[in-house]
Amino acid sequence: MIPDLNAIEEAARRIDPFAHKTPVLTSVNLDELTGGQLFFKCENFQKAGAFKFRGATNTIRSLPGDALKKGVATHSSGNHAQALSLAAQMMGVEAHIVMPENSPKVKVAAVKHYGGNITFCKPTLQAREDTLKDVIDKTGATEIHPYNNHTIIAGQATAARELIHDVPGLDIIVAPVGGGGLLSGTALSTYYLSAKTKVFAAEPEQADDAYQSFYQGKFIPSVNPNTIADGLRTSLGSLTYPIITKYVDQIVRVSEEGIIKAMKLIWERMKIIIEPSAAVPLAAILENTFECRKKRIGIILSGGNLDLDKLPWIQ
Amino acid sequence: MIPDLNAIEEAARRIDPFAHKTPVLTSVNLDELTGGQLFFKCENFQKAGAFKFRGATNTIRSLPGDALKKGVATHSSGNHAQALSLAAQMMGVEAHIVMPENSPKVKVAAVKHYGGNITFCKPTLQAREDTLKDVIDKTGATEIHPYNNHTIIAGQATAARELIHDVPGLDIIVAPVGGGGLLSGTALSTYYLSAKTKVFAAEPEQADDAYQSFYQGKFIPSVNPNTIADGLRTSLGSLTYPIITKYVDQIVRVSEEGIIKAMKLIWERMKIIIEPSAAVPLAAILENTFECRKKRIGIILSGGNLDLDKLPWIQ
Repeated sequence: MIPDLNAIEEAARRIDPFAHKTPVLTSVNLDELTGGQLFFKCENFQKAGAFKFRGATNTIRSLPGDALKKGVATHSSGNHAQALSLAAQMMGVEAHIVMPENSPKVKVAAVKHYGGNITFCKPTLQAREDTLKDVIDKTGATEIHPYNNHTIIAGQATAARELIHDVPGLDIIVAPVGGGGLLSGTALSTYYLSAKTKVFAAEPEQADDAYQSFYQGKFIPSVNPNTIADGLRTSLGSLTYPIITKYVDQIVRVSEEGIIKAMKLIWERMKIIIEPSAAVPLAAILENTFECRKKRIGIILSGGNLDLDKLPWIQ
Repeated sequence: MIPDLNAIEEAARRIDPFAHKTPVLTSVNLDELTGGQLFFKCENFQKAGAFKFRGATNTIRSLPGDALKKGVATHSSGNHAQALSLAAQMMGVEAHIVMPENSPKVKVAAVKHYGGNITFCKPTLQAREDTLKDVIDKTGATEIHPYNNHTIIAGQATAARELIHDVPGLDIIVAPVGGGGLLSGTALSTYYLSAKTKVFAAEPEQADDAYQSFYQGKFIPSVNPNTIADGLRTSLGSLTYPIITKYVDQIVRVSEEGIIKAMKLIWERMKIIIEPSAAVPLAAILENTFECRKKRIGIILSGGNLDLDKLPWIQ
């Protein structure tokens, strides 16, 4: 069932003792530059460095005790793997993480750091799914999908819920969209708690499955998405697509150049580290994909995990 | 006269409407790594990106009206130039900045961004001083020295004052030391407001004039300091040296490698951008220059201005 307000409030109570209530930052400088009034919800400061910790914690802590004994499992090389590992570790639960054998070293190290039990596989979706199935058959662990899961969505919804509580009267909230977990949660919280606020999604042009699906009115998956915003390469899921269709107002697309420019601008002017995916909403504003002048705009800075040895503006 | 508590409280009231009350951040991760309990006072989030805005604002706003009409002046290629420019701009006062002609482009651009009126000179101390004298002769502007000025020191003291208010019962406060304005202010605020807290200074081995002066008991200037911590290359001044001698407990030195490592660690784990100078206190902890286990330690993160195109860990 699509999370109702009660499910989101329950998620908020459930994760409250464990997740950071992240700050909302503003920047006179970026307001001057864009003409809008921007409020940045800093999920880059969330535990494990991204909003994913909210959904993972909400989901693990909703499982019955006998399921917990057998652990949780997922296939992911990204922020969900780190978040699930840490959320599980904090409960003394085992997290089985299936990762492609070509995953970047920093990501493998991060999952290990948070106590995740890694099984490597060939770098294909088929191999990831088969290996995950093997792990689950062997351990009895519960699969926790990174976004196609209503408890995950309710957890991610708590970020926008906090933003709306901290900053009333927003005209627009912009979230990036990949698999759609964050966007679905953002749209639901906004619908329940700030119905006059519009919800916009920002997506890389080079991974625009959500845009295509939204405007063509049918589910169209990404084919070989190639964007620096590595958190946004996934396609919408069967649970996130209908929520987005119903509760999101607009999906806009941005260039790769625009993502890098917005990312560097946030680093420079706000002195905070965000990953490329988190720069996509500001890129959408800088590329004038919608009118932002004199509007109060909430922006979800989704995460801050990246390899500091490889920055897109340094060759 | 060395600023008394009243001078610091006045500075706090004077800058309060203009400066950010910067946040104090903690990191479970860095606490685990060091064994201490660390409280980071984030002056990298201060206006113009460094603590320098405090002293500049306090000093400009202490000047009489007829002096203000003629503007303020300094020679600096660093954070003081940006801070003085912005503090002056916010008051509608002209800031004359003498900068060496080989100053990095980003620094020149930043001073221009804040409305500073730049005069370039040859890159020698003599040329800087001569050119500044010319500018002052011509304009009648008031010279604002970056650190050898009691009103500047009282302004910088407000950072530690805020930290002490936010985090009572610190065992140690560590500040980096260059010219000694921040360190003097930190030591005075701590002496007046939290007398049991020790004050440590952290300095690059390769620019260790404060260390040498402190332990040899006589003023010894830096000779060709060569450190990545560009904010800490200056020598102590005639006003900061005696304050440091009297009110600082210990000065410790760190390696260049240690500075880079600490800087990257803060970027990675805390998701915030600090400049090399700001990493020197954490480097001192990581290099075991003093016992920090189980201690409550305040760290002044002095600033966040650097060229993002040139990171020390990327060749």
